[in-house]
Amino acid sequence: MTELWLIGIGTGNPSHLTLEGMQALKDAACVLIPRKGKGKEDLAHLRHAILRHADVTAKIIEFDMPERDESLPYQIRVGLWHDEIARRWQAALKDAPHGPVAIMVWGDPGLYDSTLRIADRLEPKPSLRVVPGITALQALTSAHAIPFNTINGAVVVTTGRRLRDHGWPDGAETVVVMLDGACSFQSLTERDLHIWWGAFLGMPEQILDSGSLKAAAARIIAARAQARARHGWIMDTYMLRPMP
Amino acid sequence: MTELWLIGIGTGNPSHLTLEGMQALKDAACVLIPRKGKGKEDLAHLRHAILRHADVTAKIIEFDMPERDESLPYQIRVGLWHDEIARRWQAALKDAPHGPVAIMVWGDPGLYDSTLRIADRLEPKPSLRVVPGITALQALTSAHAIPFNTINGAVVVTTGRRLRDHGWPDGAETVVVMLDGACSFQSLTERDLHIWWGAFLGMPEQILDSGSLKAAAARIIAARAQARARHGWIMDTYMLRPMP
Repeated sequence: MTELWLIGIGTGNPSHLTLEGMQALKDAACVLIPRKGKGKEDLAHLRHAILRHADVTAKIIEFDMPERDESLPYQIRVGLWHDEIARRWQAALKDAPHGPVAIMVWGDPGLYDSTLRIADRLEPKPSLRVVPGITALQALTSAHAIPFNTINGAVVVTTGRRLRDHGWPDGAETVVVMLDGACSFQSLTERDLHIWWGAFLGMPEQILDSGSLKAAAARIIAARAQARARHGWIMDTYMLRPMP
Repeated sequence: MTELWLIGIGTGNPSHLTLEGMQALKDAACVLIPRKGKGKEDLAHLRHAILRHADVTAKIIEFDMPERDESLPYQIRVGLWHDEIARRWQAALKDAPHGPVAIMVWGDPGLYDSTLRIADRLEPKPSLRVVPGITALQALTSAHAIPFNTINGAVVVTTGRRLRDHGWPDGAETVVVMLDGACSFQSLTERDLHIWWGAFLGMPEQILDSGSLKAAAARIIAARAQARARHGWIMDTYMLRPMP
């Protein structure tokens, strides 16, 4: 592998693909796709649907995603998992056609995604190209037709884990939460916050809710559990801001 | 105007347009484009180039952007300016063809952009559709091939004005700065920070620099002034993170 292209594909709507992303997928020699195991076939199907949508004829190479060892501390577990994914990429690409290898990255390759860190473990280092993609941040604010920021305001983008461990970020006026599998907004219902929540953003399955966090929290927890049971997986994001 | 579509077009590279954005521009009855006055013709030209690139045949309607009254306090000045832009939209659209009106928004309509706030002033209220676009945040991290966040880390997205007025945000580990016409990173050179800077992101004119802020600050100020003089305008963004 001498050239590796990380291509942001947006949040599951094939129309989130940019013209640059589509052209890159067409120009690649092969596309490397993770198989995520039982119950998550939707995610691989979506990547294939996007490739069909973009008329991509590059060779498709699949590899099995390893499991994370949940018994280890978070940072160590994530590091070892990235090491193993890098090994699997190299094994899967042993007989790949010569030319650029493309990886389709959910959202944008820079935003709460591991692909750049995994690529950093490859030896010898390939030359890297990153094609930006629509993130869940834009998909959320677009779906609700709201601004990300107040006028001249700052926004804290953070994770569910940090929100649980550290609470409301000091002095924040808008907070957007990613990677939250545990509805961590529950820890903030004492505050007067407005929440804008969305799951499956940009997809036909999209679900939106918004309102006072005190009133919406239970509603969102129930809708999330139900949707997750139905689809076998869920991706959701939300924004919080003190009530005016 | 009964339907208003705000379409994110990315940061000046016509290939940043998404398939959804391209289709929306084709489906619109007309496209409303601001004329920004002498020295900023590039920005209107870029919108026209994107429309040609996307084979859009909708009617193009232009209007003159008003000037801001710089003698007023910031929030008041911005509010009055938005009022005036909303009036100019309605005047320009007096004889527009029936059907959806599209506005092409630099970056994404949710991120440090006024279009949603201006749309909110329209009477009667049109139905709003927001099409997400590639933002300067993604264009910056893609160009540098770096992650936006550290593992499980938070990011503060803020403005140059806030950085000047309030300094480094309390406890922040990554800061991305938008709308900074004054190289406000100069106020932080006492700190051991790494900067990743980019101007004209995604365009042929793209300029990148990165390194220790202490060493890079003067270099970036000079490169920015030179590029601004050459083009008559500049859009730039940067990310800061404490040195490891």
